[in-house]
Amino acid sequence: MNDEPLSREAFVARLRDEGARRYHDNHAFHQRMHRGELSRRQIQGWVLNRYYYQTRIPIKDAILLSKSEDPSFRRLWIHRIVDHDGAREGEGGLALWLRLAEGVGLDREEVAGLTRVLPAVRFACDAYVTFVRERSLLEAVASSLTEFFAPDLMSRRVVAWEQHYPWVDRATLDYFRGRVTRARADSTEAIDFVTARATTRAAQEACVAALITKCDILWAMLDAIAAAYGPEA
Amino acid sequence: MNDEPLSREAFVARLRDEGARRYHDNHAFHQRMHRGELSRRQIQGWVLNRYYYQTRIPIKDAILLSKSEDPSFRRLWIHRIVDHDGAREGEGGLALWLRLAEGVGLDREEVAGLTRVLPAVRFACDAYVTFVRERSLLEAVASSLTEFFAPDLMSRRVVAWEQHYPWVDRATLDYFRGRVTRARADSTEAIDFVTARATTRAAQEACVAALITKCDILWAMLDAIAAAYGPEA
Repeated sequence: MNDEPLSREAFVARLRDEGARRYHDNHAFHQRMHRGELSRRQIQGWVLNRYYYQTRIPIKDAILLSKSEDPSFRRLWIHRIVDHDGAREGEGGLALWLRLAEGVGLDREEVAGLTRVLPAVRFACDAYVTFVRERSLLEAVASSLTEFFAPDLMSRRVVAWEQHYPWVDRATLDYFRGRVTRARADSTEAIDFVTARATTRAAQEACVAALITKCDILWAMLDAIAAAYGPEA
Repeated sequence: MNDEPLSREAFVARLRDEGARRYHDNHAFHQRMHRGELSRRQIQGWVLNRYYYQTRIPIKDAILLSKSEDPSFRRLWIHRIVDHDGAREGEGGLALWLRLAEGVGLDREEVAGLTRVLPAVRFACDAYVTFVRERSLLEAVASSLTEFFAPDLMSRRVVAWEQHYPWVDRATLDYFRGRVTRARADSTEAIDFVTARATTRAAQEACVAALITKCDILWAMLDAIAAAYGPEA
């Protein structure tokens, strides 16, 4: 391998290319979801299991925060925890996801209790938390770069769900609507941090590897959900 | 040991008693500080070394946050990180401490660079971070209960410094002034959490042990500072 660091442009292009090829919008389960081919039970299974991922995000972001020695970085990152937990009871991404769960006909308390989460979904999400705990701050931030691809997926999802799943309460799609703007801002912050800090080729490659691992985690969740909720419809 | 849990009142009284006997206001260095017996060099040594402790607080609070599965607890606790890091550049406890460092005649950048921190101070502060990382959320919260004793110490400190160390810029004592109210609110939150969660005698004893460990950490810092900056004056 050439040891010269990539230019900022080439590094960003590399991250985008590796990420775009592996992002979970390519997964058959997501593609069927967006073509309107999932049953109510499959949509519910996805919402139920994905909630476990949502609950891990503020935990991994708090761990990530604890790895930084820089108050200005922590000031930049801390809003991600507030975005999920909310400033008050009933606000924030976790509360919005529980409303989505009700919107697809699930019992809110059952979803919040996490008792029906698939083992492989748990393993994948816990692997994300472990990755952030055990790796460098740079790799932890790089693993968040899947957010670069999220706004497009969220925009398409809202349209697809409104079109194909009229039985879902439209008002409860607010989580996805909110993520379009937030994920765009978050991924810009993260890409700025990663490009500024990854000053060697080895560090750049570690960032690419972190992003690939994160893509693998999201992919493994959909594999598990697809396997458990079967090829109906 | 009797296995019956202590009543809330008896448990709180036990924590206060064990804490009060071991809190670092009893340390000879603090007592000399408050009697006006420290030299400028000793005051500077204390401010310089204590800054390392301050920098560990948002880190340990982020770790503590990551140990909670409960968004409402995280909403309660997260302000502690903001209290130290500030909402903006130049705000928050760390910035105020650097102003104090200037107020006692230290070079701000040298203090912020942490290069002159005594090894034993580093070990003690790092032991606090490790304790919070490795122990239960309950023990981590219990270890913060030294804050119960802080408001009184801070109030006495402002008076003592204004009286005995006229060469210190009084405006830079704002860190201590701010902590009087904040530490009172914080310790009330923490005591409510600890008394609600420690429902067995073993859990209550673990909380007492956590508080004692924290007192030992604060004490060890003063031992190290007193040893390094000598019995002058």
